[in-house]
Amino acid sequence: MEGLFTANNVWMMICTALVFFMHTGFAFLEIGLTRQKNTINILFKNIFIITGGLLLYYAFGFNLMYPGFEEGAGGIIKFAGFGIAAPENGMTPEYASGGYTWWTDFLFQGMFAATAATIVSGAVAERIKIGAFMIFVIFYVGLVYPIVGSWKWGLGFLNDWGFYDFAGSTLVHSVGGWAALVAIALLGARVGKFGEDGKPKAIPGHSIPMATAGVLILWLGWFGFNGGSVLSADPELTSLVLVTTCMAAAAGGFGAMILSTILYKNLDLTMFLNGILGGLVGITAGADLMSPNEAVIIGFLAGLLIVGGVALIDKLKLDDPVGAVAVHLICGIWGTLAVGIFGAKAGSGQFLTQLYGVVIIGAFCVITSFIILGALKAIMGLRVSKEEEIEGLDIHEHGMDAYPDFTND
Amino acid sequence: MEGLFTANNVWMMICTALVFFMHTGFAFLEIGLTRQKNTINILFKNIFIITGGLLLYYAFGFNLMYPGFEEGAGGIIKFAGFGIAAPENGMTPEYASGGYTWWTDFLFQGMFAATAATIVSGAVAERIKIGAFMIFVIFYVGLVYPIVGSWKWGLGFLNDWGFYDFAGSTLVHSVGGWAALVAIALLGARVGKFGEDGKPKAIPGHSIPMATAGVLILWLGWFGFNGGSVLSADPELTSLVLVTTCMAAAAGGFGAMILSTILYKNLDLTMFLNGILGGLVGITAGADLMSPNEAVIIGFLAGLLIVGGVALIDKLKLDDPVGAVAVHLICGIWGTLAVGIFGAKAGSGQFLTQLYGVVIIGAFCVITSFIILGALKAIMGLRVSKEEEIEGLDIHEHGMDAYPDFTND
Amino acid sequence: MEGLFTANNVWMMICTALVFFMHTGFAFLEIGLTRQKNTINILFKNIFIITGGLLLYYAFGFNLMYPGFEEGAGGIIKFAGFGIAAPENGMTPEYASGGYTWWTDFLFQGMFAATAATIVSGAVAERIKIGAFMIFVIFYVGLVYPIVGSWKWGLGFLNDWGFYDFAGSTLVHSVGGWAALVAIALLGARVGKFGEDGKPKAIPGHSIPMATAGVLILWLGWFGFNGGSVLSADPELTSLVLVTTCMAAAAGGFGAMILSTILYKNLDLTMFLNGILGGLVGITAGADLMSPNEAVIIGFLAGLLIVGGVALIDKLKLDDPVGAVAVHLICGIWGTLAVGIFGAKAGSGQFLTQLYGVVIIGAFCVITSFIILGALKAIMGLRVSKEEEIEGLDIHEHGMDAYPDFTND
Repeated sequence: MEGLFTANNVWMMICTALVFFMHTGFAFLEIGLTRQKNTINILFKNIFIITGGLLLYYAFGFNLMYPGFEEGAGGIIKFAGFGIAAPENGMTPEYASGGYTWWTDFLFQGMFAATAATIVSGAVAERIKIGAFMIFVIFYVGLVYPIVGSWKWGLGFLNDWGFYDFAGSTLVHSVGGWAALVAIALLGARVGKFGEDGKPKAIPGHSIPMATAGVLILWLGWFGFNGGSVLSADPELTSLVLVTTCMAAAAGGFGAMILSTILYKNLDLTMFLNGILGGLVGITAGADLMSPNEAVIIGFLAGLLIVGGVALIDKLKLDDPVGAVAVHLICGIWGTLAVGIFGAKAGSGQFLTQLYGVVIIGAFCVITSFIILGALKAIMGLRVSKEEEIEGLDIHEHGMDAYPDFTND
Repeated sequence: MEGLFTANNVWMMICTALVFFMHTGFAFLEIGLTRQKNTINILFKNIFIITGGLLLYYAFGFNLMYPGFEEGAGGIIKFAGFGIAAPENGMTPEYASGGYTWWTDFLFQGMFAATAATIVSGAVAERIKIGAFMIFVIFYVGLVYPIVGSWKWGLGFLNDWGFYDFAGSTLVHSVGGWAALVAIALLGARVGKFGEDGKPKAIPGHSIPMATAGVLILWLGWFGFNGGSVLSADPELTSLVLVTTCMAAAAGGFGAMILSTILYKNLDLTMFLNGILGGLVGITAGADLMSPNEAVIIGFLAGLLIVGGVALIDKLKLDDPVGAVAVHLICGIWGTLAVGIFGAKAGSGQFLTQLYGVVIIGAFCVITSFIILGALKAIMGLRVSKEEEIEGLDIHEHGMDAYPDFTND
Repeated sequence: MEGLFTANNVWMMICTALVFFMHTGFAFLEIGLTRQKNTINILFKNIFIITGGLLLYYAFGFNLMYPGFEEGAGGIIKFAGFGIAAPENGMTPEYASGGYTWWTDFLFQGMFAATAATIVSGAVAERIKIGAFMIFVIFYVGLVYPIVGSWKWGLGFLNDWGFYDFAGSTLVHSVGGWAALVAIALLGARVGKFGEDGKPKAIPGHSIPMATAGVLILWLGWFGFNGGSVLSADPELTSLVLVTTCMAAAAGGFGAMILSTILYKNLDLTMFLNGILGGLVGITAGADLMSPNEAVIIGFLAGLLIVGGVALIDKLKLDDPVGAVAVHLICGIWGTLAVGIFGAKAGSGQFLTQLYGVVIIGAFCVITSFIILGALKAIMGLRVSKEEEIEGLDIHEHGMDAYPDFTND
């Protein structure tokens, strides 16, 4: 028993480390796909998110998300108090059905918490005021994310209804994705994104190698994101989850690559990469329920959705520099609904439950992010001046350049 | 027993993740050592290899490589059917002598499968048609790699003969290396590689920091590549393997650094880096059989071979932008033969068996890659136009630049 | 028991891999914060350190550091012989109280050994002669580091006194930090660092994204650095250590970010990053003794010390390109003393013991590094010529450029 408990805890600690590493992946992906002049700004936001996210989650987020709802009582909001302190049996095999220790539990969940805000960071890049963004993060990571999380993972009312979201297609990815959508609608497009004829223009990023490394690191991190969501090292489940995760990623990449090549007659690397991410987000809700075959289908369809989603965002005159809405919102919804279509829980009842969950959480996220961002817009403004946007946020907000010595030594 | 099975499976899953991460290392190494104008092309190839490699291995590669040969029957080729489905006891300690689950087995092997093609990718960089390369990958990863693998790891005839290749000096690295050799012979050198006097000219890459990061990530990945090849978390064997792997890497780097400094009066970082890789490839066949002292000797000699091998390739008027043949083929052969010279199995009988294995697999790889690449050359051509080569494959094949915003914002 | 031993050993092997990966983080951080023209030189030094460090530790360092002192006998120096060979019971649960195998022990400690030299590498960057640096590394990693380490971790006299240093705030970080301080005093500042008025001028690095990636990789590596220092996978201790480590990192970043923003009216990313490292170094001595609340306080104060320390180094007319003295020496001392102020061992007796340890080790490191570096200065000179410094060490010492193809293809 001690050996098993220790092995479980080792696995969960490794998964925690891998999810932490995802922040490196997000940072690389976001700066790679955006312009050099805003690189410091994006890195600063991401470092703020991972440090601030952990501190907020430690101060109150964890106790909002896991407040100890009584199962079946339909909990909506409850708070277990400030700070963290391990319960008496938090370090013994009895805790969490023998899974792992309370400290591991906190840290694994804490690494998840910051992810939702990171998703928003990419979408609003190159034009949001950093002060406004930091305040948004505090409210969204500190309050919205844990409250939504409590409804399912904290054993609240959506859990009672039978809503299923294994590792967070909805609870993490679409929570970030909805706020990204609201934010880019409120912010407007970057200068130069839409021509005078209204047609979208590509604004190329500054380092595709960094973006590629970012996606590979995110895929690696997903070994922990999904693999750790088993909440033990159960050999059959964890290894199945890694297989479905990797097959969906591969199929997602292929789906997007093939469709974009057919449509645009071009071997488009960024579509290939976003297809991989779409496949990963898509499998996340049901990674433990699917066969490898089903994972391939879910991932492949997610890849197709990426190509369509990116085109749709353009059509709607929205400006999402990294494709965050297509990847995290559209594929997040798809993955959540796929639990009702494929795999061990497929069925019309489950499909409806999944749909309810998507709608309720979507409504809550849209409303709360609209309130937070709307209030910030009214009070301090969301967007930097046109001059600052054109000259770059790095010089104006941070007084430094990302590659200061690169050309002039 | 459950604790041990779980710990074994955790180790194998981590090793799987580390081998997956090696693809980031290969990508960084290859783009770092090649020119900026071909960066997107190389990344696209590598992303294609890891996604396509997994899908092929899932579709039929795994069942070609582990077809269930009867030991002692001298199996050469057999196919266990399309797709993957776990056997009844694939999740229990009884499977694979209590090692780990069937799903873990598939995924770990799947991550290996793509590696062979990645080795080729580096050698043919900057001049191969991407369409031809993708078709080559499908045949080589889908068919050649698993068939060769089945002869030893799938318990085929080379296993019966007593051929030993712990983690793939031959089965992975030289399989890739032979194809790389055939491919660069068929392709010819890049424009400008050999002057009018026939002397080789260095064509420097575009980012040595990325190449360095690539090598360090590959070394990290080798913890999983060799450590996972124990096929359990057996404490003594896994930890010995990590020690021999790291000592060989360090000694290989030193060997190449010292020899190249003596020969060329220059502290050459890329030789140092390739020496590390040579040491890693060299120890791979016998990492579980060697003492740390023997690992240092094998690695050091591999480092010397790198310096000689790179010079030899130049002398033969072959053009291998990343040194793939020296690293993966020459050191792969060396490591395989070293099993007959050093360590627990040393002896003239074993040496001859190792030599037979090298020759047979070499012949098979040369013939099959010559057929595949020769057919592609005849049908569609292997090489891009001179104009495209000079202007860069990124613009011509992908319509994008790797650093589009770097200088002109 | 076998399951537990295996799980422990798996954890220690993973931590070994993570500490190895820290060298990638150090390399990225150092080149990111320095100029392009010295990038190859820094990478060469770092690759030399990790390969040479392992070889030295294998040749004699390990047996100097763990010579088998009899506890209570006040050991100062002892040598268990050249090379490594596992003791009879080195692979059994009885070894090291059932923790892990002897091979794992060697490799984990070997990865630590190189770290001290890497710290120095950053401080002396852009002006030290590479030959002198390599000789310094051989003596400092080969002799000074293991002798100091033996006093506590090898069960020597400081261990008898009750000195506490969980994972090396003093034994690793300040050992590196003292040598860095001595080295930059002997070397003098880089050309252009101090104006004619004596005021320090910022010499910006060449890639802040690389520096950021370096810090995130170092944070990830610290999961292994501190998590592995438990020397088992004990669930309660390892998971507590990861929580205190991450909370101190987050709080350190915040402390430095807030103070630097107040003082300099600028959202300074590099201060934020160095604050994270300061928090990590600060918690390292007592990561297993602190509550999460105490970890936040220790980390936050470390973050403040970073801002003050960087200013102090400037004031002293010293030139430390990467802030190594502030991060590793000042926060290393702070973390060591904090063991006497906070947590399970707090008390004036413990505080004094910690102080004695800091002073004795500091004196030994200052004297030995002064002797080594002073001798090198007298014999061969420490510093490159002014011409070489201005033109860059890459061209002069290595005959190559880090980004040769970046602008002219």
